[in-house]
Amino acid sequence: MKRTHPGLLRKILATNVRRYRAARGLSQQDFAHEIEMDRTYYGGVERGERNVSIDNIERIAKGFEINPYLLLKESD
Amino acid sequence: MKRTHPGLLRKILATNVRRYRAARGLSQQDFAHEIEMDRTYYGGVERGERNVSIDNIERIAKGFEINPYLLLKESD
Repeated sequence: MKRTHPGLLRKILATNVRRYRAARGLSQQDFAHEIEMDRTYYGGVERGERNVSIDNIERIAKGFEINPYLLLKESD
Repeated sequence: MKRTHPGLLRKILATNVRRYRAARGLSQQDFAHEIEMDRTYYGGVERGERNVSIDNIERIAKGFEINPYLLLKESD
């Protein structure tokens, strides 16, 4: 598999997810529970360890009530 | 699994990927080959049938030389 920046996008997602969750004052466990996602899996997303699927990106975005593309966009 | 809009984001991705590829005048097969992705899998992405991973979203975006978030953003 050709990878010039392996997993760069995972790190952007991880940073964004962590930021949105913190802004809502929720713990990882509480947010994972709210979106019905395994909390260990969710923790892995925030650490950039998971090759998250688009359906799960959508689920997380719904939890934050934001447009999903914002989760892949580097913050200014 | 709670799904209010099941797979809506897949459809947005599918539409965008198809549009970027067509704008470059490439066939599905040629683009899939270029990014070293199985062409049957890639075809499924363009039909919204695949629960694409973030690493594959990144790979497709690199192939188009665009910022990955654009693949999840509804076009105006």
